[in-house]
Amino acid sequence: MTNDNSSRIVDGLRTWVAAAAPGAQLPSTRALVAQYQASPVTVQKALRALATQGLVETRPGAGTFVRAVRTTRPADYGWQTAALRAPHAPARSVATALRSTPNDVIAFHSGYPDRELLPERLVRAALVRAARSEAALSRPPVAGVPELQSWFAHELRATTPAGVSPPTPGDVIVLPGTQSGLSSVFRALAGPGQPVLMESPTYWGAILAASQAGVHVVPVPAGAHGPDPAELTRAFEETGARLLYAQPNYANPTGAQWSAERGQQVLDVVRAHGAFLVEDDWAHDFGITTTPVPLAAGEDSGHVVYLRSLTKSVSPAVRVGAVIARGPARDRILADRAAESVYVSGLLQTAALDVVTHPGWQTHLRGLRQQLRARRDLLLTGMAEHAPRAHIENVPTGGLNLWARLPDGTDLYQLTRDCEDAGVIIAAGTEWFPAEPTGSYIRLNFAGPNPAAFPDGARIIGEVLQHHHG
Amino acid sequence: MTNDNSSRIVDGLRTWVAAAAPGAQLPSTRALVAQYQASPVTVQKALRALATQGLVETRPGAGTFVRAVRTTRPADYGWQTAALRAPHAPARSVATALRSTPNDVIAFHSGYPDRELLPERLVRAALVRAARSEAALSRPPVAGVPELQSWFAHELRATTPAGVSPPTPGDVIVLPGTQSGLSSVFRALAGPGQPVLMESPTYWGAILAASQAGVHVVPVPAGAHGPDPAELTRAFEETGARLLYAQPNYANPTGAQWSAERGQQVLDVVRAHGAFLVEDDWAHDFGITTTPVPLAAGEDSGHVVYLRSLTKSVSPAVRVGAVIARGPARDRILADRAAESVYVSGLLQTAALDVVTHPGWQTHLRGLRQQLRARRDLLLTGMAEHAPRAHIENVPTGGLNLWARLPDGTDLYQLTRDCEDAGVIIAAGTEWFPAEPTGSYIRLNFAGPNPAAFPDGARIIGEVLQHHHG
Repeated sequence: MTNDNSSRIVDGLRTWVAAAAPGAQLPSTRALVAQYQASPVTVQKALRALATQGLVETRPGAGTFVRAVRTTRPADYGWQTAALRAPHAPARSVATALRSTPNDVIAFHSGYPDRELLPERLVRAALVRAARSEAALSRPPVAGVPELQSWFAHELRATTPAGVSPPTPGDVIVLPGTQSGLSSVFRALAGPGQPVLMESPTYWGAILAASQAGVHVVPVPAGAHGPDPAELTRAFEETGARLLYAQPNYANPTGAQWSAERGQQVLDVVRAHGAFLVEDDWAHDFGITTTPVPLAAGEDSGHVVYLRSLTKSVSPAVRVGAVIARGPARDRILADRAAESVYVSGLLQTAALDVVTHPGWQTHLRGLRQQLRARRDLLLTGMAEHAPRAHIENVPTGGLNLWARLPDGTDLYQLTRDCEDAGVIIAAGTEWFPAEPTGSYIRLNFAGPNPAAFPDGARIIGEVLQHHHG
Repeated sequence: MTNDNSSRIVDGLRTWVAAAAPGAQLPSTRALVAQYQASPVTVQKALRALATQGLVETRPGAGTFVRAVRTTRPADYGWQTAALRAPHAPARSVATALRSTPNDVIAFHSGYPDRELLPERLVRAALVRAARSEAALSRPPVAGVPELQSWFAHELRATTPAGVSPPTPGDVIVLPGTQSGLSSVFRALAGPGQPVLMESPTYWGAILAASQAGVHVVPVPAGAHGPDPAELTRAFEETGARLLYAQPNYANPTGAQWSAERGQQVLDVVRAHGAFLVEDDWAHDFGITTTPVPLAAGEDSGHVVYLRSLTKSVSPAVRVGAVIARGPARDRILADRAAESVYVSGLLQTAALDVVTHPGWQTHLRGLRQQLRARRDLLLTGMAEHAPRAHIENVPTGGLNLWARLPDGTDLYQLTRDCEDAGVIIAAGTEWFPAEPTGSYIRLNFAGPNPAAFPDGARIIGEVLQHHHG
């Protein structure tokens, strides 16, 4: 892997093999040693690598040979059509937010913060420490490493008002990322065919998890201030739903943050209908001009099921999140997690705990806030200057995204393609709507690589829009 | 956090608060500055810390007060009963195989190999290398790190006969443990209400995953040589099932290994019914006197969906496995994985690949084989000598377990409790049966800690059995 000398030989022989007939014998080790001026060990290593790649085979005592080409008749998997039956849910394609892209484009599409926004030093040090600890070889309890459960509970407790019972560590279930938590919550608290209210637009991953769980998604319009309580009441009453999925702080994609008053109104509606509010606090660490106060911190009757992620703020490799729930709901979710994945790698849990309890974490978060603010403003300014047809109603107080409305009738498919041809990747808003989009939107992530190129990116979007709308 | 001065004040005030009445006013900042010889900034910081901990509250303009005692009324989650409705599947308790236990017992119950059987040095080195690599901060593709996909495909290809198309890296989906893969396979290839044939007895985790997926489990008797083809045919025909879950090599719990002939017979039945065989190769690295040849290696028409785990053989912290499937089945499973967890930590994937491609891995596997053999034989001898009433029909050629039949009428609940009181933990066979057990069985894992105590453990089991059956 790290031996440049052997990879040089691998590259050379790969070319040789490509030109050779199946079954042809490779030069002897001795000849290769002479040809490449390398040690026999290095040559052997190269030959093993080629064998692993299926290009050559070594017959002991005879030599190394170009492997016979496998029969490549096309396989017939037609019988599977009957065995698989019709899918339970319409397939959704892989989200734009997950696309990886070459380095030379301006990328506004990603769902993940760029690497320069991650606490690299803390993460590497924490992983190395975890690799040397007991956690590298042991299996933690199903619900999580107890100290990490405590940390998640403590984070909520910090804003729990007087008179409200704070969550306990036992209410916390550690997750291998909150996407898994969404799936479990929809399966465990609703289930196939049951109605689930969701803000619209909302996180595509939640729509996907709901569709996989087979629940019946009922969209509720969510403006810049959260869902309208009267509309929400109607939706609960019409459908008999017992679950509302929402992002009260820095909603993805709109960036909306509910006021404290709106939060209480929504909670009142949820309580009045004997329902759960699934509060997805995905951007808890991404406050820009405000600091999020989770609704879950102020509610102790088990109506709020709270999801908190560390994947985006710590590292995509430290895939750890938590769900905090009380009462039988917590037991149902835990049973689903146990059946789904038994437990979460203790190494990742230990590393995550190490990062978030390190004194450097708070320093990192303060710096991150400044960086997100600068990036947000750079993109806002660029868009205002170069793409005035894109209307950004809400200046987000946190999160990673701008949500821009384009002139009605914009062909989003063509627009995103034209932008991409010009070197700018954007995400069509369509993916964030559980049903038909209510307008032509695009989502612009300002946490991507190379913010210096943001003004250029905005200029290109503006030019493409100009071209579309003449 | 790092300011010792402010923590000194926090500690002092915490004592003061504990002795004070709820609502009592704390000394003024000025008084505290004088008392603690600290700056006003430090005192304010201490007060903020106490407020965060919920001990005091600051009313602007009035001062700081001891917070009213938290109400500790028991929470009423009764409303959840209606919201949650009846569970979709009967709850199964946490499996005995997952219990953690004190050090001074003899543990035959675990589902995981003891730490001394793990490649500790390789694992730690691989994790440290991964922590320093790109993998610590990046996000891999949904289906997995390409090099690890290649490795999994190559492992199968090694035993693919001529004329059969070997699986390609693209057929491989990396999993955060094969338990997640089981859930996905049952959801994606069968789904709620659909019949799924399962060997009986079989792995409790597969029964659990099937029950969570809402499929209808149809048990098929599996003897020491695998399921009887005629019985299997009847089950397919009676139920219209399109999926059979089985462990052809070193089945858990029985240790059964199918002959090559039986494997082909089963495959013929599966093909004849347009069905999938889900081959769970959980113990691929745990051969003792044989080397497993997966059925998936010899089948290229997409009828075999193959699961391979590294968690048990590499480390419980390196939670990585793979499912290999072809055709639309692979696409259905991938869609389910994308919805369920988006991707698997690249750090764990990179570390797993590092371990299994390290020259030391093969050395480790050879040593492991010797150790498993010695442990198996030690326990077999001990049981034959001290517990002759426990009948072990099958001497396993691989895997981690002995499956012992006890005299009919043995009260397994009482027996396991009596053994535990005497310091030996065993697992009642009940958990491995999808329906009623067909006899009184226990599973004895010979990969647990401290093999020197195995004879003692066998003696104690023998004594308890003697006591039960006089």
